[in-house]
Amino acid sequence: MRIAVDAMGGDHAPEEIVRGALDGLAFLGENDELVLVGREDDIRRFLPESGLPPRVRIIHAPEVIEMDDSPVEALKAKRNSSLGVMAKLASEKQLDAVISAGNTGAFVAACQLKMRTVGSVQRPGIAVVLPSFSGPLTVCDVGANVAPKPTHLLQYAQMASAYAECVLKIKNPRVGLISIGGEDIKGNPLVKRTNELMRKDTSIRFIGNVEGREVFSGACEVAVSDGFVGNVVLKLTEGLATGLLRIISREVHQLSPEMAQRLEPVFQEIWRKHDYSEYGGAPLLGVDGTCIICHGSSDHRAIKNAVRISVEFIRTELNKVIASRLTEIPDDE
Amino acid sequence: MRIAVDAMGGDHAPEEIVRGALDGLAFLGENDELVLVGREDDIRRFLPESGLPPRVRIIHAPEVIEMDDSPVEALKAKRNSSLGVMAKLASEKQLDAVISAGNTGAFVAACQLKMRTVGSVQRPGIAVVLPSFSGPLTVCDVGANVAPKPTHLLQYAQMASAYAECVLKIKNPRVGLISIGGEDIKGNPLVKRTNELMRKDTSIRFIGNVEGREVFSGACEVAVSDGFVGNVVLKLTEGLATGLLRIISREVHQLSPEMAQRLEPVFQEIWRKHDYSEYGGAPLLGVDGTCIICHGSSDHRAIKNAVRISVEFIRTELNKVIASRLTEIPDDE
Repeated sequence: MRIAVDAMGGDHAPEEIVRGALDGLAFLGENDELVLVGREDDIRRFLPESGLPPRVRIIHAPEVIEMDDSPVEALKAKRNSSLGVMAKLASEKQLDAVISAGNTGAFVAACQLKMRTVGSVQRPGIAVVLPSFSGPLTVCDVGANVAPKPTHLLQYAQMASAYAECVLKIKNPRVGLISIGGEDIKGNPLVKRTNELMRKDTSIRFIGNVEGREVFSGACEVAVSDGFVGNVVLKLTEGLATGLLRIISREVHQLSPEMAQRLEPVFQEIWRKHDYSEYGGAPLLGVDGTCIICHGSSDHRAIKNAVRISVEFIRTELNKVIASRLTEIPDDE
Repeated sequence: MRIAVDAMGGDHAPEEIVRGALDGLAFLGENDELVLVGREDDIRRFLPESGLPPRVRIIHAPEVIEMDDSPVEALKAKRNSSLGVMAKLASEKQLDAVISAGNTGAFVAACQLKMRTVGSVQRPGIAVVLPSFSGPLTVCDVGANVAPKPTHLLQYAQMASAYAECVLKIKNPRVGLISIGGEDIKGNPLVKRTNELMRKDTSIRFIGNVEGREVFSGACEVAVSDGFVGNVVLKLTEGLATGLLRIISREVHQLSPEMAQRLEPVFQEIWRKHDYSEYGGAPLLGVDGTCIICHGSSDHRAIKNAVRISVEFIRTELNKVIASRLTEIPDDE
């Protein structure tokens, strides 16, 4: 397999990205290949002194899409960007997996524009694995599709279930539909119709609607929502967790600096346990290939884990599993 | 003014409710009246030994809507419930404020069915005050209207701004629209259109879209969203804060039970500072009257604070302020 990493994408590119990608070589077989995509000179500066390690190749892409570029315009204007080049090669099956911590909008747009979808997938969705209080929780979609149809959400449930099984090794994961009440009749029109479709579908283990307060309590292993709600949930979770830990640290420090010092490793441990860089990025499910979106702030560990996830994605033939799971969608949906 | 409290509503009714309502007498003037609505026998059991205090009256309502009753059906079947009786009297201007910690759906439905709206308000919205990391944040709507139009959201911004000014004493509050990116063009179709309307409106201090991770960081004092997203945000915040504090306590306890004991008051203090019972319940903005929705788990402090909020709501003539703020809505919106 050929795993490509966008060396130019992310707040800590290229140094942390190149370092993490090379660390990820540990997960590759002897006939596999790691491909670093970006400005060759910039990449070479961060290679080991011995030069390019075995099984590593560089694909030179002279242009860089910046984090705050407008996605679609940047893709048009910078045809030789690392993101554009990666998506094109993936669509031509010259790469098996593409990983980027760069401009998320541009990466998702490039993959959606260039690559086909798997089987009867109508719209790809981004799945993110969040560290809930009782184990990993896969939330899909978190931003690819902000105005989905009920059938799109049903497919997100099917794809995210397959991902949780194949990559996270969770058997027969329970699926919850994020809503404003546990009863089937609660929700907005999209959620009400989706609930009906999911109740009838036997390919997923649907447990019904889940409320915001249950999402992290272990009620389900897969949570489905439209991309708008999912994105708000994801970012709110980040902001709230960071803010709460900061406040607690501050209060403890005021009470006793000595105690704050002793607690530091505890907070580090909690942070590590609940740090989603451990889960190695978010797959764009439904495209015919493997696309892993990493957080802009990714360090080398996050990139290394993204390589690990990509290998698992390909090794378990996740896209074949997804294609076999999709149920037929009636024409009128 | 006549402030009514539903003595039968909430997990700790009637004891904590009656106690909190009587504590709230401290905020009332000498010609004001506190009205306890519910089963007279049940209420009398929790009065002081000296009997009914001055300025307190009981209105007997023999039926009780339970927390898990279906709202609309329960209102029809139990015409003499405390909630139904309160909403009817409020609509007849025999009560100036109604407060309940009971079945939220039934309370909101009763108020919406019986009471008129203020001025040109199209749809009432629930505003909740959340303890953000930099002060109180008013979020509207959190569940009254799960499929709103852009003009409804504009009115929520106007009403919640008036509430933040009059009741929370925040001058010229900044308004953010909850979305999935800071740029004006980010969001779902509802949010994009609402952003355009808000940009043109001079009655609010609109700062643009706010992302989930900024919501609690002090970017704005008023956050507007549709009732579905707002409800998910509210409940996720509850669940996440509770879960995180629990995990930290547990980890610290494993490290050192002695340190955990010393930290207990710190957590209590953080909890208290960020406890939204301090903010006294969520107003249903836009109905011609004062309706305060309390959390089902409300204790006497929350009810006392709800009485305080009601008094402030009436004293500052909030509904007049709201009526004067609403801008004309074009017919085609």
